[in-house]
Amino acid sequence: MKTILIIGAGRSATILIDYLLKQSELFNWKIVVTDSNVELAKTKINQHPNGMAEELDIFDVKKRQQLIKQSDFVISMLPASMHTEVAEDCVAFGKSMATASYVSDSMRNLDRSAREKNIVLFNELGLDPGIDHASAMKIIDEIHQQGGKVLTFKSYCGGLVAPESNDNPWGYKISWNPRNVVMAGNSTAEYLSNGKIKLLPYQRLFEQAETIQIDNFTFDAYANRNSIQYINAYKIPEVQNILRGTLRYKGFCKAWNIIVNLGLTDDSIAIDNLENISYKEWVEMFLPSGEENIIEKLKRIFNNRIDEDVVEKLRYLKLFSDEKIQKPSKGTSAMILQSIMEEQLKLKPEDKDWTVMYHYFEYEIKGKRMALESYFEDKGKDSIHTSMAKTVGLPLGITVKNYLLGKIPLSGVQIPTTPEIYQLLLNELKEYGIIFKEKKYNL
Amino acid sequence: MKTILIIGAGRSATILIDYLLKQSELFNWKIVVTDSNVELAKTKINQHPNGMAEELDIFDVKKRQQLIKQSDFVISMLPASMHTEVAEDCVAFGKSMATASYVSDSMRNLDRSAREKNIVLFNELGLDPGIDHASAMKIIDEIHQQGGKVLTFKSYCGGLVAPESNDNPWGYKISWNPRNVVMAGNSTAEYLSNGKIKLLPYQRLFEQAETIQIDNFTFDAYANRNSIQYINAYKIPEVQNILRGTLRYKGFCKAWNIIVNLGLTDDSIAIDNLENISYKEWVEMFLPSGEENIIEKLKRIFNNRIDEDVVEKLRYLKLFSDEKIQKPSKGTSAMILQSIMEEQLKLKPEDKDWTVMYHYFEYEIKGKRMALESYFEDKGKDSIHTSMAKTVGLPLGITVKNYLLGKIPLSGVQIPTTPEIYQLLLNELKEYGIIFKEKKYNL
Repeated sequence: MKTILIIGAGRSATILIDYLLKQSELFNWKIVVTDSNVELAKTKINQHPNGMAEELDIFDVKKRQQLIKQSDFVISMLPASMHTEVAEDCVAFGKSMATASYVSDSMRNLDRSAREKNIVLFNELGLDPGIDHASAMKIIDEIHQQGGKVLTFKSYCGGLVAPESNDNPWGYKISWNPRNVVMAGNSTAEYLSNGKIKLLPYQRLFEQAETIQIDNFTFDAYANRNSIQYINAYKIPEVQNILRGTLRYKGFCKAWNIIVNLGLTDDSIAIDNLENISYKEWVEMFLPSGEENIIEKLKRIFNNRIDEDVVEKLRYLKLFSDEKIQKPSKGTSAMILQSIMEEQLKLKPEDKDWTVMYHYFEYEIKGKRMALESYFEDKGKDSIHTSMAKTVGLPLGITVKNYLLGKIPLSGVQIPTTPEIYQLLLNELKEYGIIFKEKKYNL
Repeated sequence: MKTILIIGAGRSATILIDYLLKQSELFNWKIVVTDSNVELAKTKINQHPNGMAEELDIFDVKKRQQLIKQSDFVISMLPASMHTEVAEDCVAFGKSMATASYVSDSMRNLDRSAREKNIVLFNELGLDPGIDHASAMKIIDEIHQQGGKVLTFKSYCGGLVAPESNDNPWGYKISWNPRNVVMAGNSTAEYLSNGKIKLLPYQRLFEQAETIQIDNFTFDAYANRNSIQYINAYKIPEVQNILRGTLRYKGFCKAWNIIVNLGLTDDSIAIDNLENISYKEWVEMFLPSGEENIIEKLKRIFNNRIDEDVVEKLRYLKLFSDEKIQKPSKGTSAMILQSIMEEQLKLKPEDKDWTVMYHYFEYEIKGKRMALESYFEDKGKDSIHTSMAKTVGLPLGITVKNYLLGKIPLSGVQIPTTPEIYQLLLNELKEYGIIFKEKKYNL
């Protein structure tokens, strides 16, 4: 009887837990779900006989290590910055592990020790990163097997609200870690354009978003982190254009750009006495003194970047409101903004979220230049059974299952760019409706 | 015979070393000057019988601690981030210490231990911070002693090139740590305006510089770090406006704003193979692809923020040059920019630098509203005997001397806002020509 330990039972873990509990019936597994809020873990297990809920404060090293020691596989659903402690324990006790997060430097540094212990540290096993790697890599491997060269690879993904559930001016509701929504893009993005490395700093990232048409829908897309590193990961040294982008409804980026350049995502300066300050007064902190009203001040700073649509979006986030900030009582602007967004951009119980992924390739094969588009979209059932929880949870669940069944003979730090991982993963995802539609044409 | 240890013999240490060697003749002190480049230390000592040069790699803990143990007072002229190790050693061995840098959190945390050991940790004992604190605090204490209230305090300082030595479009030459010049303003600035806290993020700091007239000269002034904390340090809870600003020649900030918003001060992404990339190609990394030339691209991104004056300044920093980047061969954009500025904005041997400090007060006294302006300027002799080295070195030298002579009965972390420090300091500075001119008038 194998034991799988899931650390963190938050919104992204719902469908992962369901999936593994289901599989546990076939393979006689025990699924231990831990959270600092044990009631949350209990709810997610829903009295399944193979499930067990445990309270775990991740900083309780003794209990954490005890639980890891008693497990055969560990899945960390913690915020990305907390994976390393878990990974170090896993290496120490010879336990394999999986996360849906980007490989951090500290994770990468564990590669050699993990190989020595013959354990695997799966990462980037979610939607994006995750399904994007698997589906793109399958196409790239096929092009290469036919002797082709990949010249352009652009990959876009968004965790959005479904059009039928969209009732706010942002076209956005929060379906995953709200802190990550606030801090998104908060480093210089890197991509390749016409063979040249391009760097885009945070303050221009949203301003220089591109408009992109997918399946009759128009999106904004902003460059996502470091795309350059995937030239090696995808084994496409021949590529001339590579960009990974994040999708938002058209108009999102123009307004978010104002929030970023105002400074409202600042996470360095704690502001006191927030119960005595209104949202508008908070925003006015970032604006010059003067007699004009707040919108006139915004126009003074940002000129024609402030239009009616932007004003409507900012108003929806209460930025012009005289209401006092209730929560937090002391905190950074990023924390205030997160709290507003959790309230104003919350999925209602019956709301459906929407994940969209779109790859665009240009490649050369036998002297012919071709384009290939590959696309999937998926909608959640409701605010608990979200497409986000599904598309993050299934790649983790499926890959962990395959590993425990001995079907993935790998060790060390791994992402789903190898056929051993992606073939089984993409096949099983189809059973859950995650099916890529392809369109190929000559250029 | 007391021993004073000076760690770091760089450009800001020249006049400090001269001053202390001179004083050593009166008080029979030994002045030990260390640097990783011992030849530099030797040059600065210039065979003075009371001077001794020692090679010291600051990461050589054993030698560092040995030298500190053998000293009576330690002056750290290292980059600000390296003071803490020295300060911890000083506390451990019961030695007093001084720096010209801002009090860091880690320095502040040593306050209690320093008091327990009855040693002093002087900080902010340079020009700005330093002379500004001393001179402003003297005025503030006088206003308070007369029963007045300080309503507005603005304090501006610049380490500039003298007009007669200015032969480049920036009106700037590097007279201190060039790394700090590149990274200046790289955090959200905080100040108080009409009783309200204002926050200004890096990406808008230079765009929102103010124009300020001092003594027939027009400057740009941008907000400097956290001015709010000085409400407590200066004991002026009544103040409605407080701003510390940095002075540059008019036009500097408009062009530097482009450099910041392009992303050229990025210090997070290392770029490889710089010997094969031209300066223009490096800048193009931060611009979109396209057929236009680099200036047209800049105009596409920044619109009317690019004018002829900005173009001339950017050109002077080689940003449009086809020359290959020679140095460094691999590095961040901040490192490339620093290397360019060290070359293009270098003080020539005969050049004079120029330090300018200007305080503006508004205060209320016996029902009358008054303004007070206090101002000094000072020019260097040449590129070695700079006003910067003088105005940074003298406050350190004078205060360390007074402390060793028993005239400053203080312990713990101290900045020059107490009369025990500033009275003696300001008096002796006059002997070196650092004399504030005051202008008082009714409002």
